[in-house]
This record gives sequence, C-alpha cells and structure tokens, in this order.
Amino acid sequence: MKKERRRFSKEEYLARQLKVRQSMNASNVDALIIYDPANMFWLTGYDGWSFYVHQCVVISTNGDLFWYGRGIDAKGAELTTDLKLKNILSYPDDYVMTPEKHPMEHLAGILKEKGFSNKRIGLEKDNYYFSARAAESLYSSLPDATFSDHTGLINWQRAVKSETEITYMKRAGKVIEGVYERVMQVAEPGMRKNDLVAEIYHAGVKGHQGHYGDYASFVPLIGAGEEAAACHMTWNDEPLKNNEGMFLELGAAYARYHCPCSRTLFLGTPPQQYLDIEKVINECIENAIGMFKPGNTCAQISDNFTATLKKYGYEKNNRCGYPIGCSYPPDWGERTMSLRGNDQTVLEENMTFHFMPAIWFDDWGFEMTESIRVGSNGGECLSAVPRKLLVK
Amino acid sequence: MKKERRRFSKEEYLARQLKVRQSMNASNVDALIIYDPANMFWLTGYDGWSFYVHQCVVISTNGDLFWYGRGIDAKGAELTTDLKLKNILSYPDDYVMTPEKHPMEHLAGILKEKGFSNKRIGLEKDNYYFSARAAESLYSSLPDATFSDHTGLINWQRAVKSETEITYMKRAGKVIEGVYERVMQVAEPGMRKNDLVAEIYHAGVKGHQGHYGDYASFVPLIGAGEEAAACHMTWNDEPLKNNEGMFLELGAAYARYHCPCSRTLFLGTPPQQYLDIEKVINECIENAIGMFKPGNTCAQISDNFTATLKKYGYEKNNRCGYPIGCSYPPDWGERTMSLRGNDQTVLEENMTFHFMPAIWFDDWGFEMTESIRVGSNGGECLSAVPRKLLVK
Repeated sequence: MKKERRRFSKEEYLARQLKVRQSMNASNVDALIIYDPANMFWLTGYDGWSFYVHQCVVISTNGDLFWYGRGIDAKGAELTTDLKLKNILSYPDDYVMTPEKHPMEHLAGILKEKGFSNKRIGLEKDNYYFSARAAESLYSSLPDATFSDHTGLINWQRAVKSETEITYMKRAGKVIEGVYERVMQVAEPGMRKNDLVAEIYHAGVKGHQGHYGDYASFVPLIGAGEEAAACHMTWNDEPLKNNEGMFLELGAAYARYHCPCSRTLFLGTPPQQYLDIEKVINECIENAIGMFKPGNTCAQISDNFTATLKKYGYEKNNRCGYPIGCSYPPDWGERTMSLRGNDQTVLEENMTFHFMPAIWFDDWGFEMTESIRVGSNGGECLSAVPRKLLVK
Repeated sequence: MKKERRRFSKEEYLARQLKVRQSMNASNVDALIIYDPANMFWLTGYDGWSFYVHQCVVISTNGDLFWYGRGIDAKGAELTTDLKLKNILSYPDDYVMTPEKHPMEHLAGILKEKGFSNKRIGLEKDNYYFSARAAESLYSSLPDATFSDHTGLINWQRAVKSETEITYMKRAGKVIEGVYERVMQVAEPGMRKNDLVAEIYHAGVKGHQGHYGDYASFVPLIGAGEEAAACHMTWNDEPLKNNEGMFLELGAAYARYHCPCSRTLFLGTPPQQYLDIEKVINECIENAIGMFKPGNTCAQISDNFTATLKKYGYEKNNRCGYPIGCSYPPDWGERTMSLRGNDQTVLEENMTFHFMPAIWFDDWGFEMTESIRVGSNGGECLSAVPRKLLVK
C-alpha cells in the first residue's frame, strides 16, 4: 500500500530534506513549522484533503522531522509518508474548530518536550492555512522562542524540478490535451456552462493516454461574454451563446503536479478583434519560449512581452506568469518568483512556469497560455494543445 | 448580467448586513475585516475563485461596506455584487505574492483615509486565508487601532437559514441523489478509482432534475480497503477490487450551498462486520433525526449517538457533525458549533447540519451520513439517497 502511494524514491525525499536543512542553517533557523500543504507533500509525501484543519510538518536542523495534525488524519500520514509512527503526532479532536483552545498550543507542548522552547523557529507567515491565530497561539505558548518569517523557504527549494517531477508535469500535460479535445468535441451554442464543465472535469480526471487525472488546484474557470472581462468567475447554468467568445482557464494534474493551459473558444465567426489579439499573443508566446533559458531573468521575459504588446498598441498591468509544480487549492502557483518587470530572479534549467499573457479588456478577454520548462537552449512546452483561437 | 448572477434579493442582503452590524455593536467593534470567502459571499454576493490572493470585505457600524482585492478581480466584484463602483477598491498588481510589501498595508492606507486609524477593528484571526502576515501588516500599519478576534461573528449569523437558502440546499440534495444513482450504475470491480471519480464529478456538475451543480468545497474522497481507515485521502488510478468496501465522502453544491452525503459501497458480498455496523448507524441516524428540533443541544445529539454506539460496543472519539451552508474550499462546514459532548449550543429551526456518524477502524471504515435541517418537530433530510450499505 505505501509503495503504491509514495510518489518519489526515498532518496529523492532525503535529498529534499537535506536541501531544506541547508537552507535553514543559512537562514539561522533551528526548526521550521510547515503549513503549506504542497510543502508538506514535497518534503514528506503527505497527501490528503485535511488542510481544512490545522496541521503541519516540523523539520529541525538537528534531525527532527515529524507530521502533526488531527488524530483522524494520522492514518493518512502513515499511508502516504515514510515517517515512522513515533514521528506522526496528533492532537485530540476537541481541539478542532473551537475558540477555547488551539492545535498550535498543543504543538507548543510537543516542541517544549523536544527542547525547542528557546530556539529559533521559522514560520510560513503568509501561507494560506497558517492563520493569525495559529501564529499568536505559538507566540504566547512559547514566549522564549524566537520566531521569524520564512514563508518561501521551501517553495524556493521546489523551483528546479527533478526528472520525475518533470515527468509528472508532462503527464498532466497529456491530460490537459485530452481535456481540450473533449471541449472541441462537445462545446456548442445552447449547451449550459455547467454541462461543458462536467465534460471538462470528466476528461481531466479520467485522464489521457494512460495517465490518470488528479484534482487541479483551481476549478475550471470560464469567462463568457462580458464575464470574460473578469478573471476568476466560475460557471453557472447559463447557455453558451452563438457568436460569443469565452476563455477557458484550465489545468490538469497528475500526482499533485500541474500543467495549466488556457485557451479562448469562439462559437461562431470571431470578429477581427479576436483575430488581431490571437496574432499578437502568438508572437508573444513564440518570443517568450525562446527566452526561457538559464541566465535570463523573470524581468527580461516580462519586459519582452510588454514591448511586444506595446508594439501593437496593447498593454497589461499585471504579471504575465509564475512558477508551477505540485500544489493544493486554492493555487497552483509556487508563490516565489513572478514574471514581472521588477523581478530579477535568474532562470535555471528545469524551472517550470505558467506563462500567462492573458488580457482582460473592459467587456471581453482573451487567454492563451502555456506551461513551460526552462531548457538549456530555450523553453519546452509541457503540453501540446493547439496554440490558437479555438473556433467552432 | 448582474441579475442573473445575484443569488438573493436585495432585501435579503440588507437584512444580513443589518444583523451583522447589530452583532458588531454588541461586540464593540467599529469595523470588521472579512476574509472568509463564504462570509464575503453571504454578505455581498461576491463570488469568484480569487481567494488565492489577499482580499476582503470591510463592513463598519457607521455605514461602510466595501470590497477590497486585486485589481483584476474588481470586475468580478462589479458583476456579482450590488456594490457601487466607489465601494469596489483594489490594490496594484505588484502587491501580489511578494515579500516586499503586503496588500494589507495598502488597505491600512484606505482605512486611515476613512477615519479608522484609532478605531476598534475586528478580524477573523482563525480563518484560512487570513494569514499571520496579513494580521501583522495591519498591526504595524495601524498602530493606534485596537484589534480583536471575531472569527465566528458572521459565521454565527449564517447559522439559521432563510427559505431561499434551504431551497438551494435541497437543490444540492437533488444533485447528490443523481451522483449516487450514477455511482450505482457504473461502479464495478476493475474500474480505476479515477474513472469512478470522473463519473462523480460529471454527475455532480451536470446536476439532476433541472438543477445544475456548482463545485463542492471538498473534492470527492474515496477510502477503499485499508485506506478506508484514513479519512481524507483522495483518488489515484488503482482499480476497485471485488469483495472490498469503500466509503464515498461526497457532497453536491448549488449556488455555493452544499448538501454533503456519504455512503459506503461494497462490491461483492459484504462480510458481517459491514452489516452489523450498517444496522447500528441506521439506528443512530433514526434517533438523531428525531432530535434535530429547536431546544435540543448539540451535546444532546452527540451524547445520544455515543450512547447508541456504546450499546453495541462501538466508540468514536471525534465529533459527529457540524453546521453546513454556503462555503468555499477547503471546507464545507460553517465552523461554529460542533456536534460533540461539550457543545451546549441550543438548536433553532432551519439550522442545517451534516450529521456524520462515520467510524474509522484500524484497517477499514464505514461512512453513512445525512445533511439535516432542524425542523419544528424533528429533522428533515436534505437529500433522499438510499440510506443503506450500497452493495453491487
């Protein structure tokens, strides 16, 4: 059972733990309390939809590595990680969702026993799930500890992907190809949006070419008509209209690794404005792919994109991409670098990005995006969905 | 467009806002910063998958009510709420996911302009999404304000449902009936788990009896074989086995309102232990339904359940249910009451609960649950999925 659930070799997990401990030493941190579910997964393999209660992994520079969560989730930690039972620790159920006490107070007791009362403890202070109250419970329960913010410490270690990680992302890439094949088969005017999304989910979880689909960290986003001017709206039961454009912001996942890919679909005969922007965005993507190579910076990719847009009279006031990999809702981004003008991060081989030259206008929008691996001589797309305005 | 997207009457939103302001007055809070996406939705209608960046709704006792979020999401606020444009405020894109500055610092500037520098500001300190850093950014940017924790203030206002809310939950109940019909049609030994989940998603989003399906706040959870001893594991591509039991923890949603419903499915001939527990849990549910009436307490329902279990030699060391309604990932619970022995909350008519007498043993588990409305003479189930061990 454990062997089937474990997604990486024992050696790969150990290498990750070593990298993290080195980074902790460099950051003067004795112990790190990890709340980000993707960081917990990446470091130990822990996988489960249990992040709606307080839970974490704790790693120290002197050898500790343990999972801490709700009692009923301990079995999941046993089944998905290589941790010994003594390193799977839990809190009683009456700590769940009550104002009277907090799971982090119980963790503080464990940390005291382990000798961390007056140590330097790193926190992921800007992670979803690490609530203000979680932090304040730790502060008051461990008054002699020194706390510091290391939100991105592990996320940065995840930036360069291993061979297996790239393999998983390419499998997710195959799955998203299957999703768009299904979309092109079934989408038609009069179809309710939820019926289209039902097909997207079905294709995305059934998988493609032998690869199953895991849940993606975003639900399918559809922006049709005026709603295409808004970025993050979800479906209802309105029908798709003839001669209307809609963006599909979709992604597939395999073993928690993602391949996002957005396209714009037009049912009917697209007006010139769609054809114009299609041409421009295609040029932007072609240019960008060539630039996803070691030594270039995030800012250079963003600047090139902005310049191409400007040449044709368009502009975009938000970042044009972000790193991707393993993730959990609500986000499939890694939250380290951003493809924007002030980010001087230098690219390394096997970093992976969602390049997102999406444009939202006042009453319509256009999305055509690619997930890209940084290759030694330029980028490699992780999926091969036809790169064009989809017309049906 | 707005009319189609708005889910409740203007009067219902105003009544909700009035209730919240009364509760704020009683709690000595001048302004409340609302991070919980379900609270934002319930109070203003705002609906979008944008909670992966910092955003909130701010309400004050002296009349303020505004949405605050990322610039590219302002259009979504315009399309889904009745807020005037002057009450849709946003932060520039370079505040997104950077350690250099924080969206809450920008909000602090807005709050200063509006005269809240030295006011009493309520926070949802234990909400997902309200990170430690969000709180600390506010503390340092508004040093003269008085902050206090009001995590559940709005959640408690949501406890008693309106007629329209009950209608939506019953529609979700219809959808989950359709999901289980599909499960019984397609599940068979040898089917990959992901293929079963693909059908579950398809049925859940396509909807049933004319009602569409929204995304549920949990993904489908399947525990098969030994994994049924763990509560929150998700699918992979292993095949379903003959003569194996699995729990399905599923829920459907309509317009963000949920109806969870779990069942256990056995492919083959169930051993006696499944039949035994089926009988016991059925008795527990029958008893509980009668007790979901005004005047009874959460503790009484829990105690009755525990006593019934004990009579047959079983025990359960975790809560047996929680309130439900509108929600966003990662949780479909309301996080106020819990059905457990120390919760003396008195039930009121039209409160709604997921009664969850699930039992996890060392190497198997059994789930059979109901979503229940508190009725004047006892509970009313929100869906009519056959209440039995599903055998195929």
